[in-house]
Amino acid sequence: MKLVTFTRGPVPEVGVLDGGDHVVALRPAYADLLRSRGIEAAQADALSETIFRDMVTFIGFGEWGKDEARAAAGHADGGPHRLPLFEVTLRAPLQPVALRDCIAFETHLKNFYENINRAEIPPAFYEIPVYYKGNPSTVVGPGEDVPWPHYSQEWDYELELGVVIGPSAHNVTKAEAESHIYGLTCFNDFSARDVLRKEISIGLGPAKAKDFATGIGPWLVTRDEIDDLYDLEMVARVNGEEWSHGNSGQIHWSFADIITRMADSEPLRAGEIFGSGTVAFGCGLELGKYLEPGDVVELEITGLGVLRNRVVSGA
Amino acid sequence: MKLVTFTRGPVPEVGVLDGGDHVVALRPAYADLLRSRGIEAAQADALSETIFRDMVTFIGFGEWGKDEARAAAGHADGGPHRLPLFEVTLRAPLQPVALRDCIAFETHLKNFYENINRAEIPPAFYEIPVYYKGNPSTVVGPGEDVPWPHYSQEWDYELELGVVIGPSAHNVTKAEAESHIYGLTCFNDFSARDVLRKEISIGLGPAKAKDFATGIGPWLVTRDEIDDLYDLEMVARVNGEEWSHGNSGQIHWSFADIITRMADSEPLRAGEIFGSGTVAFGCGLELGKYLEPGDVVELEITGLGVLRNRVVSGA
Repeated sequence: MKLVTFTRGPVPEVGVLDGGDHVVALRPAYADLLRSRGIEAAQADALSETIFRDMVTFIGFGEWGKDEARAAAGHADGGPHRLPLFEVTLRAPLQPVALRDCIAFETHLKNFYENINRAEIPPAFYEIPVYYKGNPSTVVGPGEDVPWPHYSQEWDYELELGVVIGPSAHNVTKAEAESHIYGLTCFNDFSARDVLRKEISIGLGPAKAKDFATGIGPWLVTRDEIDDLYDLEMVARVNGEEWSHGNSGQIHWSFADIITRMADSEPLRAGEIFGSGTVAFGCGLELGKYLEPGDVVELEITGLGVLRNRVVSGA
Repeated sequence: MKLVTFTRGPVPEVGVLDGGDHVVALRPAYADLLRSRGIEAAQADALSETIFRDMVTFIGFGEWGKDEARAAAGHADGGPHRLPLFEVTLRAPLQPVALRDCIAFETHLKNFYENINRAEIPPAFYEIPVYYKGNPSTVVGPGEDVPWPHYSQEWDYELELGVVIGPSAHNVTKAEAESHIYGLTCFNDFSARDVLRKEISIGLGPAKAKDFATGIGPWLVTRDEIDDLYDLEMVARVNGEEWSHGNSGQIHWSFADIITRMADSEPLRAGEIFGSGTVAFGCGLELGKYLEPGDVVELEITGLGVLRNRVVSGA
């Protein structure tokens, strides 16, 4: 399933993409399905409201939730809750409960270090997967403008794979770790390079270099739709021109390694998201160029659609 | 007010310390107050439940909430909702919606760099306040054991002042920044030094070095109870012996500087917490010694009480 969060009025709704040009509104569609099972209308509405309150809530219902959503989408066929895509606005597929971002592609780290005149990759990179924690409250969805903060002049994108967690994990073995992947999405870790250089010189963060925006979307694609996590083509285009091209298989650490590490001695909760880290040459810094105000950045990953955002001057 | 989260059954409650040896349970006490104002019992219960659902919810009610809590505590005097402290268990005063931790004391950074054989403090320290983001889901409260993760052998504490945000801030001026401080608490940024060294060698995070636990408490002291943010004595004791002693006035960056920075081009939300960073010589690393399993660490800060935690071997 390609799950979406969309609006057609003031309240965001959970939906599922149907046939590429329609979306099924799951809250009313599921209430319909429940009524067809003989449940009273008020109870059907209340139950559906509880399950489809928002994407993170829905993720908490796990495989059972996915099955019920599929049934609701099937039942909605031809009915009023199957909406043309052009009648709705897609939003960030979820408001994650936490956001982490790894550096898991060796070449990106090597290129980044060269840019800031640091020596070779430290041994720790090969010992443990490392990551920082971003700001989950500032995710931006498909089509949204990214207001660039006034304090930065070096505007950049990062081409990454986003991994959404579910069910929650705590002290999991490597063998079971990937079963905690609920789904995938494109992940653009917008980066203020000038600020990053300062923050990284001290060794904490980054924070202001990253926390103003992270692009995710356009859909949350459930794990079962992806054949091979390690063979996804990843492309970034700026104003339609291809700047970056990589493959998820180039990653140094497996998602099993990363999840095992993250969930070691602390909970990794359903509804969290993490970025894979930037694929090799997956950002402007590695190509010797930056974004300009008004540029449109598109990330496209096999099976995950196109995440498109325009960067604009912020307040 | 000294606000607390406590339990006397399975459900955490919001309370206020009264006279040093009692706590007023605010949910029933406020419902009582509302009934005395002529509100029907069911409506009084529902309203009080909404306001005092948990500390973060209550913080969202701002100054009005504080006034109502004071009135409820006054009205509870001598009644059944004023409980002896020994009948309840204090918990972490809040489950923060986000957790950041600064390095704002120059001497601590200098000492830390010396320990890891890094050169002098980089210029960026004097240009911008820096911080990392911790894991808000792993805060531990007063009296709680801290299970040390199996992957670390160098156990340390950090003596810090915790600042709780409220009301929310976004692009605030330095002049108004400190008005977004809701209250203060002791803040122990437990640190796995061996892991920290590895993570900091790459330049992201820290993550696993910190995210297993952060101690906060015992109370959340509202801003109005603190005369001078920059003259608070800060002491850390291990098994009753004083290890660290500093003063909040030694901080390089003001809280106004820090809050202005954090809220620049991104929201800083009511119910977030940040640590000041470690005061000079406020951790074992700076003293050439570490904690041992079973050690009891106490942080004490003027007006904020004593936060006591025991470190034990984890899973």
